[in-house]
Amino acid sequence: MKNFDFYNPTHIVFGKNRLEELDSLIDKNAKVLILYGGGSVIKFGTLDKVKASLKNRKIIEFGGIEPNPKYETLIKAVEIVKKENIDFLLAVGGGSVMDGTKFVNLAANYDGEKLTDLLKYGFSQALTIKSLPMGAVVTLPATGSEMNSGGVISYNHGKHVISNPALFPKFSILDPTLTFTLPASQVANGVVDTFIHVVEQYVTYPVNAKFQDRVAEGILLSLIEIGRETIDNPEDYNIRANLVWCATMALNGLIGAGVPQDWTTHMIGHELTALFGIDHGKTLAILQPAIWQVRKEQKREKLLQYAERVWDIKTGDDDNKIDLAISKTRDFFESLGVKTHLSDYDITAEKIDDIINALENHGLTAMSETRDLTLEISRKILEIAI
Amino acid sequence: MKNFDFYNPTHIVFGKNRLEELDSLIDKNAKVLILYGGGSVIKFGTLDKVKASLKNRKIIEFGGIEPNPKYETLIKAVEIVKKENIDFLLAVGGGSVMDGTKFVNLAANYDGEKLTDLLKYGFSQALTIKSLPMGAVVTLPATGSEMNSGGVISYNHGKHVISNPALFPKFSILDPTLTFTLPASQVANGVVDTFIHVVEQYVTYPVNAKFQDRVAEGILLSLIEIGRETIDNPEDYNIRANLVWCATMALNGLIGAGVPQDWTTHMIGHELTALFGIDHGKTLAILQPAIWQVRKEQKREKLLQYAERVWDIKTGDDDNKIDLAISKTRDFFESLGVKTHLSDYDITAEKIDDIINALENHGLTAMSETRDLTLEISRKILEIAI
Repeated sequence: MKNFDFYNPTHIVFGKNRLEELDSLIDKNAKVLILYGGGSVIKFGTLDKVKASLKNRKIIEFGGIEPNPKYETLIKAVEIVKKENIDFLLAVGGGSVMDGTKFVNLAANYDGEKLTDLLKYGFSQALTIKSLPMGAVVTLPATGSEMNSGGVISYNHGKHVISNPALFPKFSILDPTLTFTLPASQVANGVVDTFIHVVEQYVTYPVNAKFQDRVAEGILLSLIEIGRETIDNPEDYNIRANLVWCATMALNGLIGAGVPQDWTTHMIGHELTALFGIDHGKTLAILQPAIWQVRKEQKREKLLQYAERVWDIKTGDDDNKIDLAISKTRDFFESLGVKTHLSDYDITAEKIDDIINALENHGLTAMSETRDLTLEISRKILEIAI
Repeated sequence: MKNFDFYNPTHIVFGKNRLEELDSLIDKNAKVLILYGGGSVIKFGTLDKVKASLKNRKIIEFGGIEPNPKYETLIKAVEIVKKENIDFLLAVGGGSVMDGTKFVNLAANYDGEKLTDLLKYGFSQALTIKSLPMGAVVTLPATGSEMNSGGVISYNHGKHVISNPALFPKFSILDPTLTFTLPASQVANGVVDTFIHVVEQYVTYPVNAKFQDRVAEGILLSLIEIGRETIDNPEDYNIRANLVWCATMALNGLIGAGVPQDWTTHMIGHELTALFGIDHGKTLAILQPAIWQVRKEQKREKLLQYAERVWDIKTGDDDNKIDLAISKTRDFFESLGVKTHLSDYDITAEKIDDIINALENHGLTAMSETRDLTLEISRKILEIAI
């Protein structure tokens, strides 16, 4: 096991009818900026419930944070925070809204010259910043942003990671019933996103981290059990509650503590979203099987463990076990209605150059847990992913 | 899944050579009280390393916190905290030292009339208290006190639980090498204690909490894999590191979130320690098999899940599966050198009345996750445990 630090101070408020406790979680005198996305939190009444819970506090609303939230949009909220002397940021939505709110927090408290510098340096844990307290009301189980200190922001045809210990939400309210109205495709994307968050931290090389491995496997086994079921029965509370909690636990530092981490799938995936607008979850489903096929040797031991413990594959030679595990993974994503080839999204082989150029422009020329995944290997992955 | 709150702000500093970071974790101007137990932290040099790390800070030492730490001992440290205007409490040791330090913190900041009231009311989460920041350097993996807000204190022939959100350590340094010098019996006790912490939160009744169940099973599987091995090879870093991390994760709120909890084994166990001085871990090994034998019907579903997932018992009828799982559990404890019958500790049947009287005096007449475990049932458990 590698040395590690684990720190996660977010207070999780989980369950039915917890929204009404919002009032007790935010300082009575705080002026609150509520940030949200498109109209669904309005349409399904979540925003009204939030406002009712906040009672007579001074609140300002900022809607319109898009999926893959844009710098240009968020910067408008930064102005409001400064101008209105906001004391508390409340994100109501899914990963994009929470990530966007974190950037707003970072930017509103940044005293450097150029805010766009934050997209270059915003990932630095060392950057000491002031921040406002932030809370989240989560409406989409997927990114884990509700219990971590990171986010991803879109700017100038690229995706930029921000990460800072000051960005942990003070609390996150996870009421699974608030996710009942999600469209099936978003739930499916969330299942895939959670799955890939886990394997990025698990299918690497072995360091004998038994707890972390078992927890990673536990989340994967749970997702396989409930993935299709929670799409088919969106209002089954117990099944959805398990998805919500797994999604949070997949990216809150727990399974990544003391183990190597890959993140190649996310990095190439971000380019696919930026270039072609493919949903984040779908990009991951396209890339993961192809990456494992190409990286079979580097990941052999953990892929075998994955085959045996997650897919219960106990017979056949090692190569067969691994191949079967990869194809079962692909089948699982497809069973959720998520297509797993670039060609399913009308991306043909001649686009590969564009993707490789984007990776090169963003400096992603040595990815993976061992930093030996070159542009040439990325090209091979993309060729297989067609 | 039940509604739950999860909050755990302790910063874990895990790995080799982390003790030297102590300086950066405590305010430069803080006056520090170092609390420890018997001589082992002196004998093996841990205390010297701690003091070296603290550099030129003002420090005061308070040694002599015994196993099952006594109110009468701790109250002396409370006086020092008040008299010397201590700013930071640093526990160096195992569960007893950490639990004791938490009580010292609670008592030094309590403004009620009688400090012994804390033993009655100290378990109340609602009690708002001031507290000093506290840190821990952990030398024994067992109780999980390094990452939770509770403790157990001995007073007047009873054991008293304290628990308050203000008592989370600010940080805990977990360097597995600091545990290499532990005697085999203490390591074995720690393995058993961790195992029982898990089953108290897992072998109850099912609420379809998939993540929590998988994590609980993951810790149990890991303990079974490494329990004997880490006793036989105390200086194998990787094996010991897994024990240390599992012990912390077993009682930090993670596996207990959203599920019913039992704690009968601990409650009766505390009486055995108070009356006969049997080590805490050993009391648990004695009681758990007997409790499951008596509570087979109430715990049927989870005992079956435990049999299948933890012990890989997949054939036989349900009763056989459960019986086999119980006997495998007993064998596991015995394989660690921990005896599992009261008679192994020279406790005979005529002592049962004393134990029942103690339970009655402490109001423990309706225990378990369903509050239906009467004194009569406790008697039956003890008869089987002979």
